[in-house]
Amino acid sequence: MKDEKKVIQKTAEEIIANYQETTIPMFCGENNLPNRDVIIDIVKEIRMILFPSYFDLEKGNKAIPESFIKNRLANLYDKLKGQIKLALLNKHNEPLEKDKVELEAQKICDEFFARIPEIQKLLFKDIIAAFDGDPAAQSKEEIVFSYPGFFAILVYRLAHELYLRHVPYIPRIMTEYAHSGTGIDINAGAIIGEYFFIDHGTGVVIGETTVIGNHVKLYQGVTLGALSTREGQKMAGKKRHPTVEDNVTIYSGATILGGATIIGENSVIGGNAFIVESIPKNTKVSIKNPELYIRPDKKSQ
Amino acid sequence: MKDEKKVIQKTAEEIIANYQETTIPMFCGENNLPNRDVIIDIVKEIRMILFPSYFDLEKGNKAIPESFIKNRLANLYDKLKGQIKLALLNKHNEPLEKDKVELEAQKICDEFFARIPEIQKLLFKDIIAAFDGDPAAQSKEEIVFSYPGFFAILVYRLAHELYLRHVPYIPRIMTEYAHSGTGIDINAGAIIGEYFFIDHGTGVVIGETTVIGNHVKLYQGVTLGALSTREGQKMAGKKRHPTVEDNVTIYSGATILGGATIIGENSVIGGNAFIVESIPKNTKVSIKNPELYIRPDKKSQ
Amino acid sequence: MKDEKKVIQKTAEEIIANYQETTIPMFCGENNLPNRDVIIDIVKEIRMILFPSYFDLEKGNKAIPESFIKNRLANLYDKLKGQIKLALLNKHNEPLEKDKVELEAQKICDEFFARIPEIQKLLFKDIIAAFDGDPAAQSKEEIVFSYPGFFAILVYRLAHELYLRHVPYIPRIMTEYAHSGTGIDINAGAIIGEYFFIDHGTGVVIGETTVIGNHVKLYQGVTLGALSTREGQKMAGKKRHPTVEDNVTIYSGATILGGATIIGENSVIGGNAFIVESIPKNTKVSIKNPELYIRPDKKSQ
Repeated sequence: MKDEKKVIQKTAEEIIANYQETTIPMFCGENNLPNRDVIIDIVKEIRMILFPSYFDLEKGNKAIPESFIKNRLANLYDKLKGQIKLALLNKHNEPLEKDKVELEAQKICDEFFARIPEIQKLLFKDIIAAFDGDPAAQSKEEIVFSYPGFFAILVYRLAHELYLRHVPYIPRIMTEYAHSGTGIDINAGAIIGEYFFIDHGTGVVIGETTVIGNHVKLYQGVTLGALSTREGQKMAGKKRHPTVEDNVTIYSGATILGGATIIGENSVIGGNAFIVESIPKNTKVSIKNPELYIRPDKKSQ
Repeated sequence: MKDEKKVIQKTAEEIIANYQETTIPMFCGENNLPNRDVIIDIVKEIRMILFPSYFDLEKGNKAIPESFIKNRLANLYDKLKGQIKLALLNKHNEPLEKDKVELEAQKICDEFFARIPEIQKLLFKDIIAAFDGDPAAQSKEEIVFSYPGFFAILVYRLAHELYLRHVPYIPRIMTEYAHSGTGIDINAGAIIGEYFFIDHGTGVVIGETTVIGNHVKLYQGVTLGALSTREGQKMAGKKRHPTVEDNVTIYSGATILGGATIIGENSVIGGNAFIVESIPKNTKVSIKNPELYIRPDKKSQ
Repeated sequence: MKDEKKVIQKTAEEIIANYQETTIPMFCGENNLPNRDVIIDIVKEIRMILFPSYFDLEKGNKAIPESFIKNRLANLYDKLKGQIKLALLNKHNEPLEKDKVELEAQKICDEFFARIPEIQKLLFKDIIAAFDGDPAAQSKEEIVFSYPGFFAILVYRLAHELYLRHVPYIPRIMTEYAHSGTGIDINAGAIIGEYFFIDHGTGVVIGETTVIGNHVKLYQGVTLGALSTREGQKMAGKKRHPTVEDNVTIYSGATILGGATIIGENSVIGGNAFIVESIPKNTKVSIKNPELYIRPDKKSQ
């Protein structure tokens, strides 16, 4: 037992020394950093408000009174504003001054709240796109309840509004929460139109500067990525990811790379295609699939 | 503060207007929709009953008395029946009449309970398949505890029983719960034989009308999918996904598409193969891998 | 109701009969098996200790006093030792004798604790690698908060220490917890150097006997795997997975297989490459991408 105490003492000392020596921010001065768990609660709360019958445990949600929604929204406002304030106060390299943070957080919250009903309308359209696009969908309710693509889009649409308003940390925490639960990695910086559907979705990557039009459909494993990241932080802020125009379908495993690459409207990109140059509109792209060697298998006979 | 109240008031009004305008079901009349959290609890509870030493937090599970199991099962029965009733009452386009729902839910529950011990036996066989097939498996216990492929199969086998009995919403909520935690997307409609093993598993997609025989082994990123979903809901109910016969192994990243595609027994499909036509039995399929350009890299020297 | 009782009775009897008939360990004698939930708590607790401002809900963590850390560490020590004892007592085929388990668990815990500060230093380096390698990273804080690659590496580095000390069950439960939340499957047996970065990460598989040098960067969908697992358990313990030397970058979807395959230092492996033989150092490997068929799509016009 004595030894154990020594081990713990030594470990504690070394960890504390590490805190002090690293250049990675380990302490946040007077103000806490935003909190991941609270941010996830905010996402869940908004989803509950947007789709009350699907995610509310409480009885009596058959005819939600206005006062009920207003109470929920008021609590949400406070929670979100609190996290935005912490994020702004701790902004990497350029923390906001304390006397400006209250006003700035309120401005961002006001704008975000004004967008919530618009996002709800966009999500209704995304549900229609999913139902029309998937023969396995038995109802629209099923999509709201359980489609990972729909959940990832919902979270992206919220996070994007905060990204546009330069809120640090929170947009990425939101989209990585969705990534964790769906395998779909949509950077909050991407610009995505109406009626968007991702089927199955595991492995999808949509990079920060991607632009996607209306009525676009993606399958699992599609990457909309950068050509090279060799230059690292020097590339920050530049358009590094493709543009996908209206009514494009991209089948599973396709990889489309580069900030100058445009997939023209109404085009269809076949599974596993690897594309680094623009594709004209009204085009069908398929790949010459790798030749198959098909031969009797002696071991299995 | 005054402004904040106005913002919240306006947001609430617009959200309520959205509820009323959408054609997507937003309220459920007298009866709540089934609840995702309760359904996930049901899955966990069944797993606990099937493998008590692995998932039970309580002490004293060394020799579980019959009365303990019976209590657990009785609670499970009530919980499951309650959710099935809510699902049937809210069935899209054809809700069950209220006086028929009690009997129908009881019938489904009785049949489901009769299947639980059979599913347990199937899972024992799946564990053996995983252990025999994976040199990294140090014990069968490890598979029960932590293999994502095993968890996805467990949830699929439960959900499939409810799918067969036309329970809405719940099968998909179950399999998407497994998908979320494993990256393995098995539609509850698929038909899967004994001794099934999925290794690693992230990115696997098994479509609704897939048929899989006994002793089949899949690796990460395998898609058993539809050729095209362009026709959307018109394709609902048709066989759109492949058939995989006994003793087939499919290596990572392979894509097999189409309802008429049959992979014959004892065949081995190599990694990244893209297959849209049937493969005879006792066949080894490998791909001519894309040619590699291998050249000195000046930048890295 | 009478029928319902009969159904439950019959199901209980059959489940109990299954418990008794299977060769899969279902009961653990006098000692419980380790508990997955407790092991996940241990991982979260260590992460909190290593990065207190990021994951601690409590206020007042601006200047964590030594006593606070020591209390946390002392609780962690007890929890971890308890789980290690249960794991050793239930070790498959070779359970440790009861009078030896206390000493052995203490020895392992002491060694593990001595490694924690070293792991913290390694993680600081991994954060630098992620920031330098990803133009979308706005700050190092963002990486700690939300990068899935960073989380998977953190959990791997902890699990690897227990794997090295032959602790059963726990390392795999830890890495599968990370796999579940990130889609990144790093076996605890792999050996991984400093400044390791995995971007996006969904679908990455790093097998048990993989060796990775310093400054290596992987993208989503990269497999470092075995050539064939047809021989199953006969292959256990042999080097089945590749070696990746210093300063190698491997782009998305590349597959590198085989225990004798070495990717030489400073090399770059292009997306979707399929490699089963060694690649010299300072080499750039890219693939002749599958030929594209690009043609007007009548249906879309």
